[in-house]
Amino acid sequence: MSDTPRSHPRYQSLRLRDRIVAGVAEGITSPHGLIAHGRGEALDYLLGERTHRFATRAIRAAAATLLLAERPVLSVNGNAAALVPGELVRLGKRLGAPLEVNIFHASKARERAIRRHLLAHGADTVLMPTRRAQLDFLDSNRRFVHPQGIARADVVFVPLEDGDRCEALRKMGKVVVTVDLNPLSRTATTASITIVDNVARALPLLVAQVRELRRAALRRLRLLVARYDNAKVLEAAERRIRRARL
Amino acid sequence: MSDTPRSHPRYQSLRLRDRIVAGVAEGITSPHGLIAHGRGEALDYLLGERTHRFATRAIRAAAATLLLAERPVLSVNGNAAALVPGELVRLGKRLGAPLEVNIFHASKARERAIRRHLLAHGADTVLMPTRRAQLDFLDSNRRFVHPQGIARADVVFVPLEDGDRCEALRKMGKVVVTVDLNPLSRTATTASITIVDNVARALPLLVAQVRELRRAALRRLRLLVARYDNAKVLEAAERRIRRARL
Repeated sequence: MSDTPRSHPRYQSLRLRDRIVAGVAEGITSPHGLIAHGRGEALDYLLGERTHRFATRAIRAAAATLLLAERPVLSVNGNAAALVPGELVRLGKRLGAPLEVNIFHASKARERAIRRHLLAHGADTVLMPTRRAQLDFLDSNRRFVHPQGIARADVVFVPLEDGDRCEALRKMGKVVVTVDLNPLSRTATTASITIVDNVARALPLLVAQVRELRRAALRRLRLLVARYDNAKVLEAAERRIRRARL
Repeated sequence: MSDTPRSHPRYQSLRLRDRIVAGVAEGITSPHGLIAHGRGEALDYLLGERTHRFATRAIRAAAATLLLAERPVLSVNGNAAALVPGELVRLGKRLGAPLEVNIFHASKARERAIRRHLLAHGADTVLMPTRRAQLDFLDSNRRFVHPQGIARADVVFVPLEDGDRCEALRKMGKVVVTVDLNPLSRTATTASITIVDNVARALPLLVAQVRELRRAALRRLRLLVARYDNAKVLEAAERRIRRARL
């Protein structure tokens, strides 16, 4: 952790950068994950590094969708584990949903390091990829899943997803909720609900929203989902980035 | 190196990504360097991953400035060494300018790895930071320089520079030529000449431009420099990014 003062205008961004670099040292984050984080930094910079209304709308619909799900699963990769381990654990507990490790660049050691990291942050269940269950339409390492997790999930929360896998999950009929700072990425455009925001800002808001809505009437939750329009949300995010004051 | 087919629309970007990840494995690039590369990827994406006219104009002025310099030096960090080692060596030879290693995150081992990498790519002289010479106005690791290199240079070419050091070099009266994909970064706005382009596209063009102009009349070179307006170039780059089709 560098000793950036809290008063630094980009304190939060630098703190996250330190967290993801520490993730590499702990064997959680891959080098490609660092590059992806950098891409996110640039896009977040264009978004003014704040949560916009298109994101809070998506977060509300995401909370309702996850609460309505029968078998929700939270898919965790190296960057998500390094950046928001505590929030992922809290979200899983509130939803009664397992966490499942799933990474793009194959590495058993890294999968285990992510599992340990999540357990250290209080997770009860962390499912691992297995050879017993595979996703269709996919041939990377990411196709291997857990039979009791992503394989049978109806709703998958996959922050910082890659496009191929998001498409594969959608083709298998699963509802996909993602967090992605690029509103025109393949993940953003194929997901059911796309939260265009920094995962470190979005996750606490999502946890809070789930808590707020957990006692809501079923009808209200269904209405929130029915009225949500992901295409509109992506359009608004794109407009915001284009008009950005650099 | 991953086996991305040449036909892939983002082949060049993926190839550079592989090169910089390899740089980490070789001890040349830092984890923070990978994040910086990611930021560049996102901005380059917004630029359409091509060299624009504002960049070729800056490249031409940069070539003239470097040819007119009495003691030009090329400052090399981990990312530049990983991405364009051969081009830096060629540029140094054409200009009769030494390469000098200078990195943001202090590491003697990494400085030595960068030096070895440049020598392996054919460099004659690679100067190292010393305690015998320091830049004013700077207290990071980057203040240590070589007395025969950056310390006495009149023109410093520093691709992928950080803002503090760029400012310090300018305050010391040195002409700074940089390559930076963010036209509104502190480096971009304080440098004398800012090439807003991917360093992997810009360097070969700069080498070619130096070759083309090396026999030009002094008067012509001076005119090229005098007519160059960095503020206008940055404005044009900013406009291009704002209007970008994502």
